[in-house]
Amino acid sequence: MTTISLLTDFGLRDGNVGVMKGVIWGIAPDAQIADLSHSIAPQNIREASFTLLRSAFYFPLNSVHIVVVDPGVGTPRRPIALHIGEQYFVGPDNGVFTGVMEHAEREGWSILAVHTDKSVYWRDEISHVFHGRDIFAPVGAHLAAGVPIEKFGAPIDVPIRLALPQPERTSAGWHAEVAHIDHFGNIYTSLRREHLGDSMQVSISLRDETVDSLVRAFGEAEPGALIALYSSTDYLMLSEVNGDAGARLAAQVGDPVDVVLKDE
Amino acid sequence: MTTISLLTDFGLRDGNVGVMKGVIWGIAPDAQIADLSHSIAPQNIREASFTLLRSAFYFPLNSVHIVVVDPGVGTPRRPIALHIGEQYFVGPDNGVFTGVMEHAEREGWSILAVHTDKSVYWRDEISHVFHGRDIFAPVGAHLAAGVPIEKFGAPIDVPIRLALPQPERTSAGWHAEVAHIDHFGNIYTSLRREHLGDSMQVSISLRDETVDSLVRAFGEAEPGALIALYSSTDYLMLSEVNGDAGARLAAQVGDPVDVVLKDE
Amino acid sequence: MTTISLLTDFGLRDGNVGVMKGVIWGIAPDAQIADLSHSIAPQNIREASFTLLRSAFYFPLNSVHIVVVDPGVGTPRRPIALHIGEQYFVGPDNGVFTGVMEHAEREGWSILAVHTDKSVYWRDEISHVFHGRDIFAPVGAHLAAGVPIEKFGAPIDVPIRLALPQPERTSAGWHAEVAHIDHFGNIYTSLRREHLGDSMQVSISLRDETVDSLVRAFGEAEPGALIALYSSTDYLMLSEVNGDAGARLAAQVGDPVDVVLKDE
Repeated sequence: MTTISLLTDFGLRDGNVGVMKGVIWGIAPDAQIADLSHSIAPQNIREASFTLLRSAFYFPLNSVHIVVVDPGVGTPRRPIALHIGEQYFVGPDNGVFTGVMEHAEREGWSILAVHTDKSVYWRDEISHVFHGRDIFAPVGAHLAAGVPIEKFGAPIDVPIRLALPQPERTSAGWHAEVAHIDHFGNIYTSLRREHLGDSMQVSISLRDETVDSLVRAFGEAEPGALIALYSSTDYLMLSEVNGDAGARLAAQVGDPVDVVLKDE
Repeated sequence: MTTISLLTDFGLRDGNVGVMKGVIWGIAPDAQIADLSHSIAPQNIREASFTLLRSAFYFPLNSVHIVVVDPGVGTPRRPIALHIGEQYFVGPDNGVFTGVMEHAEREGWSILAVHTDKSVYWRDEISHVFHGRDIFAPVGAHLAAGVPIEKFGAPIDVPIRLALPQPERTSAGWHAEVAHIDHFGNIYTSLRREHLGDSMQVSISLRDETVDSLVRAFGEAEPGALIALYSSTDYLMLSEVNGDAGARLAAQVGDPVDVVLKDE
Repeated sequence: MTTISLLTDFGLRDGNVGVMKGVIWGIAPDAQIADLSHSIAPQNIREASFTLLRSAFYFPLNSVHIVVVDPGVGTPRRPIALHIGEQYFVGPDNGVFTGVMEHAEREGWSILAVHTDKSVYWRDEISHVFHGRDIFAPVGAHLAAGVPIEKFGAPIDVPIRLALPQPERTSAGWHAEVAHIDHFGNIYTSLRREHLGDSMQVSISLRDETVDSLVRAFGEAEPGALIALYSSTDYLMLSEVNGDAGARLAAQVGDPVDVVLKDE
């Protein structure tokens, strides 16, 4: 039984996610389908890239991740599929796979990308506005049903990537930015554990607040305290214990974050 | 493996959708279940009818679509099942199947309707307030498990229909209305491609705005442009490229839409 | 095929629920997974307990219900599993299973509780902040795959319970409180049918409103009427027909509710 995940900006109100599942089960009747998120902000490729990165590699080997955040639907932007780290990815070639490609490079994994233009794996009728239903769902379902990725089209050398700001080394530590704010108001920075090493002696500044050391778990501080800790995917994160740090700091994606390594 | 879809106004907060799935899997353990929407406005039969129509016929043959938008729960309104176009439908006889019945007539398909009052296919205990759990989920599950539709009760000649306003031919084109506004703010009109034919030379007026021609895809105009195009289910639609036309025009379902066919 | 339900305060935006499903399917590839709710208010153990109680016992025998509302994640609070009424439960030992334990006692069912500290059933790497992914999902999946509950750790005599206010008998009837307000604005009180018996002659007061008798179904009163009736899980409930009683009365969980039994 193969597992498929879906990640879109469709919302859950209009039936479009359900339609994609109907199309998938017409091709791969026993596929297990998980929703990653359908609440990506409309056309927000960066948010989708980040959510995909934090989720995909926890899935079983050979899972297929279908991403439809697709402002270029109906234009010549390419539909693509990728094979990265024993996971498959399907979606528009618009940068949405930046996060998982960068991760593959950090891990030293190879990336195979294919231009999925063989219409035999698409629906018979193709609209100009809903390729999630007409191209990406059927391609993902055929992948899940065992069609080798090479069959879907010609290889692509360089899929499109977002130019995401990378953390910069400063004399005192790192200059980075807010990468994501989650449902609980946890503020993810673009810094990861590998940037900072094992030290817990760091000071993190965002807006007018500074947090002076890292903790391991929410329960190590009192409710209401502003803390810094690593997320479950190893991002440096600012949080309020049992509260909403994002709202408290009025933080936004892209806000500058400065870190001082106090051991140095 | 049979596929079931669920369409309700239950929201996703209270566990009621999960309970329906639990009941279904007690009867049809291997059914695949897709959520179409649980965010239909409370008691909004028209919205449910439209969402069902745009979704159901993309599902595999013999899928079962369970709809629970049911202001009359606990009153004598009938529970029904329908067989239309190789899809099954289960829900209250309150007009929620108007869209799929009209579609069947446009396509020349037969409609078989049954009053599902044989309580052997219901839960043992029936509440007065949650027939989704007690009647519609088990009936849908038994259908998915292979019980023939005729077993569930006596045929019904005329299921209830909503009296939806139909587009009217005018000297210059069509007078229609707003039928739906989706998550992205796309404004669906009640006009379909078959009303307008192949011409792209149409002018569409809604509130104080007029759009002067049709495009095929969002990418054919600049971000921020107000455009008209066909939805993936062939409805004439007003949209803002990468924006929210519904908010921009303050459009509401039922607003008048006037179309001039410029070829004529 | 085994059924699993998920109940969390994660929201649906960040991919965490999907990640839990990916982890589960890596262990129990054919498990059916239903979402109960992911919109529990952050850290609201009481709301989770109530939602679980109203949902769990409608699932097939041997279903596994995984609950992750877990403000103490990363602290010494215990991960536990329970076997109650032919259903399994997995989550933190923080009171979230109070409702199902009280139900078991009312029904005279036994409760088996286990401290699931055998890390062989966890993920290899355990974060300090996402035990839903690292402990509860894999434990639940192994349970669903048939591992006996005794294997997961030593028995626990007394799982933690919330001290929920119980309805109190008064000279005229009952003094109780608001226990939950649902998506439709139905106001659930903490009184159940067994408190009130078969009488429909009761008067219920909440804030400045009094409802003078019970009805069986929404359709027995006119749209807009404020009514009292039993929920599908036998809670005494105040509702507005086709409206939102919660908003109308500005009701909140914990508000006092007074009931007069008029037969007495």
